[in-house]
Amino acid sequence: MDLYRMECDKFTEVLSSSDPTPGGGGASALVGAIGVALGSMVANLTVGKKKYADVEEEIKGLRTKAESLREQLLILVQKDADNFEPLAKAYGMPKDTEEEKKAKAEIMEKALKEACSVPMDIMKLCCEAIELHEGFAHKGSALAVSDAGVGVEFCKAALRGASLNVFINTKLMTDREYADKINKEAEDMLKKYTAKADEIFEYVRGCLKEK
Amino acid sequence: MDLYRMECDKFTEVLSSSDPTPGGGGASALVGAIGVALGSMVANLTVGKKKYADVEEEIKGLRTKAESLREQLLILVQKDADNFEPLAKAYGMPKDTEEEKKAKAEIMEKALKEACSVPMDIMKLCCEAIELHEGFAHKGSALAVSDAGVGVEFCKAALRGASLNVFINTKLMTDREYADKINKEAEDMLKKYTAKADEIFEYVRGCLKEK
Repeated sequence: MDLYRMECDKFTEVLSSSDPTPGGGGASALVGAIGVALGSMVANLTVGKKKYADVEEEIKGLRTKAESLREQLLILVQKDADNFEPLAKAYGMPKDTEEEKKAKAEIMEKALKEACSVPMDIMKLCCEAIELHEGFAHKGSALAVSDAGVGVEFCKAALRGASLNVFINTKLMTDREYADKINKEAEDMLKKYTAKADEIFEYVRGCLKEK
Repeated sequence: MDLYRMECDKFTEVLSSSDPTPGGGGASALVGAIGVALGSMVANLTVGKKKYADVEEEIKGLRTKAESLREQLLILVQKDADNFEPLAKAYGMPKDTEEEKKAKAEIMEKALKEACSVPMDIMKLCCEAIELHEGFAHKGSALAVSDAGVGVEFCKAALRGASLNVFINTKLMTDREYADKINKEAEDMLKKYTAKADEIFEYVRGCLKEK
């Protein structure tokens, strides 16, 4: 069964076990999906309301994007587990002879690159999700502004969570040029989008202060 | 069916709908449960390993606490929805006559206090969960250190997410003394435990940098 089809309580149970998957990567994809779902909720509480008729079309466009991101992130919950398998197998390879060492190193390198690709994809989707929340927070129904704040906070946490799953893999790569390229890409996303997420969260926090 | 027994993909779907529950509060409880499950995972990857025999008993103690927090947080996913119902009903009360206005105001005030109590509980549990991650990150298996980092980040996001659900309710209370007391308690938790969570995350980030 695909992991994202598991019951929520069961998922947290399997997550807490010593099984290598699901782990921090898949959990990040799920938290991202929960975050962007809150964005969709804001959209659904805005569309059809007279007060927000002016932004209705814009919010509908954001909602379509949010729904697509939610679906993509859910699929990555499972894909992260699938992509980790070759790495788990590589870790278990013998390295008693020089030949075995060489074979293991080669397969490890390939597996590390593969294990990196899903958290990188999670990061990219979370950046897009954070971007959407700017619209949800500023233009969506004021009654649901706290949900936009929670949503963007979760997308940021998923972005940062996924980044650790990138860095733990790039650290072990021997192809440092490739590793540095990925690290830089990840750092750039972190820098730009944690700042943006914090800005949106602070805007929401401001809306909830007593006048 | 209790919300935390729902399939993960279904939960995000229901969350994204215009139904008032589940909303940002219940989602925060779930993200907290996912976070603390990652802490348990680190514990489970540590216990029984020769290398970590010295800290085995300590980690077992932290694991017991983490498991209890995970269960409590899952239950709050549902409880947040249950406690929101009276408030949703109060919003719908008529206020055409002076008498109706007075009755509505009284019931609203009570419902606001009730709707506040679950996110406050979520915040308290997330603070405890963040505390546990200090041990998981510093003393748990180094192979799982990234999971401790992701776990603490999710507990922090759940803490901040739940706080918005406190503030949106305290803002509307007429009993300002009570509201200020709750706000101060929430602000104190945020200040102390976001700092602690960031410290733990940065420690993990440091472990993943190339030597």
